[in-house]
Amino acid sequence: MRKILIIGAGKSSSYLIKYLLDKSELENLQITIGDLNIENAKKLVGQHSNVTIIHLDVFNAESRTSAIKNTDIVISMLPARFHIEVAKDCITYKKHMVTASYISKEMQALDADASANNLVFMNEIGVDPGIDHMSAMQVIDRIRDNGGKMILFESFTGGLVAPESDDNLWHYKFTWNPRNVVVAGQGGAAKFLQENQFKYIPYGRLFRRTEFLDIDGYGRFEAYANRDSLKYQHVYGLDDARTLYRGTMRRVGFSKAWHIFVQLGMTDDSYTIEDSANMSYRDFVNAFLPYSPTDSVELKFRHALKIDQDDIIWDKLVELDIFNPNKMVELDRATPAQILTKILMDKWTLDEDDKDMIVMYHKFGYELDGKKHQIDATMVVVGEDQTYTAMAKTVGLPVAMATLDILNGKIKTPGVQIPISREVYTPILKELKIYGVQFNEKEVPYLGYNPLNL
Amino acid sequence: MRKILIIGAGKSSSYLIKYLLDKSELENLQITIGDLNIENAKKLVGQHSNVTIIHLDVFNAESRTSAIKNTDIVISMLPARFHIEVAKDCITYKKHMVTASYISKEMQALDADASANNLVFMNEIGVDPGIDHMSAMQVIDRIRDNGGKMILFESFTGGLVAPESDDNLWHYKFTWNPRNVVVAGQGGAAKFLQENQFKYIPYGRLFRRTEFLDIDGYGRFEAYANRDSLKYQHVYGLDDARTLYRGTMRRVGFSKAWHIFVQLGMTDDSYTIEDSANMSYRDFVNAFLPYSPTDSVELKFRHALKIDQDDIIWDKLVELDIFNPNKMVELDRATPAQILTKILMDKWTLDEDDKDMIVMYHKFGYELDGKKHQIDATMVVVGEDQTYTAMAKTVGLPVAMATLDILNGKIKTPGVQIPISREVYTPILKELKIYGVQFNEKEVPYLGYNPLNL
Repeated sequence: MRKILIIGAGKSSSYLIKYLLDKSELENLQITIGDLNIENAKKLVGQHSNVTIIHLDVFNAESRTSAIKNTDIVISMLPARFHIEVAKDCITYKKHMVTASYISKEMQALDADASANNLVFMNEIGVDPGIDHMSAMQVIDRIRDNGGKMILFESFTGGLVAPESDDNLWHYKFTWNPRNVVVAGQGGAAKFLQENQFKYIPYGRLFRRTEFLDIDGYGRFEAYANRDSLKYQHVYGLDDARTLYRGTMRRVGFSKAWHIFVQLGMTDDSYTIEDSANMSYRDFVNAFLPYSPTDSVELKFRHALKIDQDDIIWDKLVELDIFNPNKMVELDRATPAQILTKILMDKWTLDEDDKDMIVMYHKFGYELDGKKHQIDATMVVVGEDQTYTAMAKTVGLPVAMATLDILNGKIKTPGVQIPISREVYTPILKELKIYGVQFNEKEVPYLGYNPLNL
Repeated sequence: MRKILIIGAGKSSSYLIKYLLDKSELENLQITIGDLNIENAKKLVGQHSNVTIIHLDVFNAESRTSAIKNTDIVISMLPARFHIEVAKDCITYKKHMVTASYISKEMQALDADASANNLVFMNEIGVDPGIDHMSAMQVIDRIRDNGGKMILFESFTGGLVAPESDDNLWHYKFTWNPRNVVVAGQGGAAKFLQENQFKYIPYGRLFRRTEFLDIDGYGRFEAYANRDSLKYQHVYGLDDARTLYRGTMRRVGFSKAWHIFVQLGMTDDSYTIEDSANMSYRDFVNAFLPYSPTDSVELKFRHALKIDQDDIIWDKLVELDIFNPNKMVELDRATPAQILTKILMDKWTLDEDDKDMIVMYHKFGYELDGKKHQIDATMVVVGEDQTYTAMAKTVGLPVAMATLDILNGKIKTPGVQIPISREVYTPILKELKIYGVQFNEKEVPYLGYNPLNL
């Protein structure tokens, strides 16, 4: 029997656990799931002979190390900041490790130790980061194998509500940590490269500089720029690319309406609002508008943001009930972002029978035989229900597959890494197709940003 | 002879030194001026028997302490962050100290030691902070002495160009540290109180939420909110005031045009622009606009910021020459704010014969005998030339007067303090009038923000 320890059985672990259990007979897997709260894991697993559920407190060294000692590989599904203690134990006890999180500095610092001990520390192998790395590198490597030279790479991902569950004017519901959605884009200007020119968009303009993306059968989306589009430039081998852009996808119209909140200051997470607990939603809105003893909050709002009587943005705001004088914030010492998150969660929480959707869109521009070409690759994954979500599927399956591939020696290059090598992405992308996670590629005319070559 | 040590003889020390030298015979003053660069001090002083100019390096403990030991009182005109070592020496060697800077935490921590040694550590006694404290507290104390109850306090200050030297479309030139002007308002939402409602303005809206102020003989000004209008609420005894607002004054139209820079992200000081040294001013502007192989920077700019053909804002931008493809930034690894500062300094630096102007506007609202009243108090000081500026006058004279009042025992309450007590402000405001630094008070109908009491 090969032993797998999964630490953390939260929202995104349903497919991960199911996949490994389904393979457990054939692959001789003995799975241990460790969590502070074992109820969730129990519900996910049901009755299964190849799995043990244990109480595991990652901050308790004995609890942690006794579980890690007794396994062959560790999957950490904890929040990213909690991985490092697990990772150090994995070095100590010579265990492989898999996470879906960005590589932290502390994790990167273990690279030499992991390599020296012939251990694979696979990170960023969820959806974004994860499937984006693998799917991009597969196409980039193919283009290069054929003698092409990459000149443009753009990549967009969105976690959205599925069309059949899309019943609000924003065409959006929370499918991931709501706070991250509310503060998205803050902390510095977005930076990217267009035709060898560095471009910068400050937070205050971010949601007004979107671009459109169309996916066959799913219609039109929009995307706003991520903070750092150049992050993987070198890692992907794109040092000579003239255009690099990474963005986040929403349905058309979301960003223009979201910009209203940005302008008013409602997404600020850096200070607390006085007496927030006793504010109504209407009071909260009014705190960002000039005082008037007579003018309505609505008219002050329309005037300040220049919203015409017949602008659909207004309906989006009304739908969120932000002008309600009776709904109370009820959060003590809350930041604007925390209050806005609460208001949005009233409306944007997925219902029991709602389905989520993950969309991804890559553009690959390249030169071959003196001509410019472009390949667009799109992926759409729709969730089954509130347990087997598209998010859980696209995060959990690559993690599970990588784990098994490491145990089976298909992935063997040691060290702290992300899934950009053929050894990793080839088997996983192939297997993902069986589960309906696949890209639709098509050749399109190269447009770039300078189609006429001026 | 009483000995005064002035550390730092920079731009704002001309009036300070002149005042003390003029008084030196009558008051038996022996003045020592210590600076890293003694040339500037020499130029200011000329030939005068009661003054010695010494080389003083505030980071050299021996240089610093030997000068401090040998005086009765120390005036530190250094940048605020350099005061603390001087202040500690003043405790050690039992010397009074005067600065025009905000009290830092480190300075405040010396309060008990200063008091125990019967030393006056007077801070915030320049113009803003300084004259604003004194002039406000004089009126507030008078209103209270007469049985009035303060319900509103608003205070505005501006460092501007004098009307006779106002020859650009922005009606603005730098009279103080240009960097501080470019980054003004950043770092968090502006917070204030209007009719007992807390109001918040994010940086992205700050320059679009101005209000107008008229000063007899000087026309109309506008003001944008300072970061923290509540800072002196408790210190001024205004805990029950319903409206508290502090702001910065500009000529009308400045803020609306400045908002263009804010929106584009040109005032950001938190990251550096790639290859900034080799950019033209036009390239810099273009870095904040979408790429196009054909559309002009001008049209992209007008479109992005919605600037009509006949909008005067455009002329303001053109006047700054920001679209010039030949003027180079020439700053290596510069932030947007640093580059914008350079561009503005080309146009907004005071000429040899330009005069500056300090304006201040206080509004005092109070209840007396069941009625609401308001007093508006305004001050305008115009500089004489580029040495004897309004800024140097309004900063230097209160510092000099406080120093002499401490030596003469008129100011004797010890401790780390700001000039809000009658002991301090009464003699200084009286003497400032002799130098033309005075307030024009008038009673006006109480308006507040709820004039009809709704």
